[in-house]
Amino acid sequence: MAKEEVVKKLEELGNDMVTEIQKNESPKFKTKIRAKSNVLYDPGLGYLLLGNKTEERTFLNIAQAKKFMQTIAIANKCKKFLQENAHTSIRGLFYQLKFSLGEDVEEELFSEQSESNPLIEDLELALDVKREDLNLTTDRKGVAAGMFKIIDRFGGENIEIDGTKLGRSGWAIPSDVDNDIEFKDIKAKYVLVVEKDAMWQRLNEERFWEKEKCILITPKGQASRGCRRLIRKLADYDLPVYVFTDCDAWGWYIYWTIKTGSMNLAYLGRNIAVPEAKFIGVTMQDIKDYSFLEKLTIKAKEIDIKRAEELLEYEWIKAHKEWVNELKQVLQQKKKIEQDALQGPRLSFVVDYLKEKIKKNKVLP
Amino acid sequence: MAKEEVVKKLEELGNDMVTEIQKNESPKFKTKIRAKSNVLYDPGLGYLLLGNKTEERTFLNIAQAKKFMQTIAIANKCKKFLQENAHTSIRGLFYQLKFSLGEDVEEELFSEQSESNPLIEDLELALDVKREDLNLTTDRKGVAAGMFKIIDRFGGENIEIDGTKLGRSGWAIPSDVDNDIEFKDIKAKYVLVVEKDAMWQRLNEERFWEKEKCILITPKGQASRGCRRLIRKLADYDLPVYVFTDCDAWGWYIYWTIKTGSMNLAYLGRNIAVPEAKFIGVTMQDIKDYSFLEKLTIKAKEIDIKRAEELLEYEWIKAHKEWVNELKQVLQQKKKIEQDALQGPRLSFVVDYLKEKIKKNKVLP
Repeated sequence: MAKEEVVKKLEELGNDMVTEIQKNESPKFKTKIRAKSNVLYDPGLGYLLLGNKTEERTFLNIAQAKKFMQTIAIANKCKKFLQENAHTSIRGLFYQLKFSLGEDVEEELFSEQSESNPLIEDLELALDVKREDLNLTTDRKGVAAGMFKIIDRFGGENIEIDGTKLGRSGWAIPSDVDNDIEFKDIKAKYVLVVEKDAMWQRLNEERFWEKEKCILITPKGQASRGCRRLIRKLADYDLPVYVFTDCDAWGWYIYWTIKTGSMNLAYLGRNIAVPEAKFIGVTMQDIKDYSFLEKLTIKAKEIDIKRAEELLEYEWIKAHKEWVNELKQVLQQKKKIEQDALQGPRLSFVVDYLKEKIKKNKVLP
Repeated sequence: MAKEEVVKKLEELGNDMVTEIQKNESPKFKTKIRAKSNVLYDPGLGYLLLGNKTEERTFLNIAQAKKFMQTIAIANKCKKFLQENAHTSIRGLFYQLKFSLGEDVEEELFSEQSESNPLIEDLELALDVKREDLNLTTDRKGVAAGMFKIIDRFGGENIEIDGTKLGRSGWAIPSDVDNDIEFKDIKAKYVLVVEKDAMWQRLNEERFWEKEKCILITPKGQASRGCRRLIRKLADYDLPVYVFTDCDAWGWYIYWTIKTGSMNLAYLGRNIAVPEAKFIGVTMQDIKDYSFLEKLTIKAKEIDIKRAEELLEYEWIKAHKEWVNELKQVLQQKKKIEQDALQGPRLSFVVDYLKEKIKKNKVLP
């Protein structure tokens, strides 16, 4: 979102309050409730989002006055960051608040960061912006390489990042892939998301992205906000998205978070969900199709079993008979399989495995 | 180390054993003991290293035969990886071992990865190579930017990485910065290592590396093997190394690991230690020098206090009166300070803080 537009939204928030004060009314702040009770799954859309329950905070209410002041203080800081063209983390924001508010008011306005975090989410919702638009950085994680080019407008320069010229390192996925980042020359035919960095390095060394004309991403475990936004943006270029994880509780969690979003970020809805994503493996069915895998399986842990049972209860999983079959196999065989096991016969076996799956469209929904 | 040389070393290991067998002797394998009892600190050198205690394994000893066979199996796989010009993680190696050895022998030669890990270290020591030289990747972590250029010989290409042209992302520090990586055009005056990625991003946005003609590195917490090797290599270019962490247990741990190495990697000695490194902050003294910090301190946790007490007992810390003063301050005031707090007055304050410290050489040894 354009910086000017965000500043304008922040100013409108302030102006509306001034108007209310001038009318001798108590200033109000309205946001959506983000509690679990207001999170729902839309089967048509295929992702988690917030319902319609809203919350109104008013300054002239003792229980709400502090939160109210804090929210305005955050909005004020963010406006300053935008005007200074500078970014900081929510920890940096916390210290700015602590620094500038400690002196003027008797009671310390912020003593713990846990107080400022939910208020940032309130602001995101109230203004219909993402925190990245407020110049707040989030933890970044994950790497990409392959058939794409990016212009990173950084420090007054237009820096071109070529996804095929990053060597063994890849492109460290930033916290914000929306503002001052421009995608161009996306020549890929699809996106492959690989759970583990070690496997990403293996595939990068095989130049998988060149052989297959694709974009190779690893979230390095659970995907960060930036990584999820990146995958969403690439899906918006009509690229199919395949997700390749371990066949275990952690792997399923990574897949379903990318696909349907997560409870705590449900307020971002489609911005951070990729319902089009498909699961390429590892699956229990693979044990039958690649017989060597049998001896490379591992005993499933209690959490894997418990998670499989839970997933079988979710409406969006129950609706897919392929996933019901898959998860029942887990409960029956009590096994798990790591993606690393596909290097067993030879290091490059995993390349053939992925190519075959994609060619034959052997994926789970 | 040149690939051919490593292959030769592996072959010599095998040939020596064949010779022993032909002489009707039991094949032997010799390595250094890596237990704590054989780790020592050399005050002259300023880092941890192994003593002279060695261990000999012989095939015709029931207690040692399995370990012996496993070590040879690993050496054999690594030779293959080198000849194939392919890398894998120690997890990938584990699955290769499990795949190819499960069939021939009655007893499973490897059932847990914990069995193969220490044997890799045995090989590193016996052959005087690093695991990276055996084409084994390790977890990579950390990012660098600034006044350097690197040639990454990757996939038959010479890819030039320019540390000033990486935008907001930086250069993801690879697992191996020795083989097929060449440093050139190092125009930096010093290296600044910053504990947290969020602070690295802040300084990168300020183009700190351009203003100060330096190289900006974040290990993202505790430094990986690759990151420690990178800092070591840069120190070998006679660049001063400054480390900037929180003033707390975790921060001190990061600093001392970079400087003197760590217990479990003591077998790599100077390869992975930077005794020349200096500590730039945050220090307890800073509270006096930058008065606003007082209200941005946090109550020290039990672990911070306990760690400060432990550090005061280490001979290499006791020897520096500056560190004794510093740690006594921690015990007295029971406070900690995060590096993020230096963004309190304004986001760019941390730039002035670092510049002043470096200019006036206000560092701890």
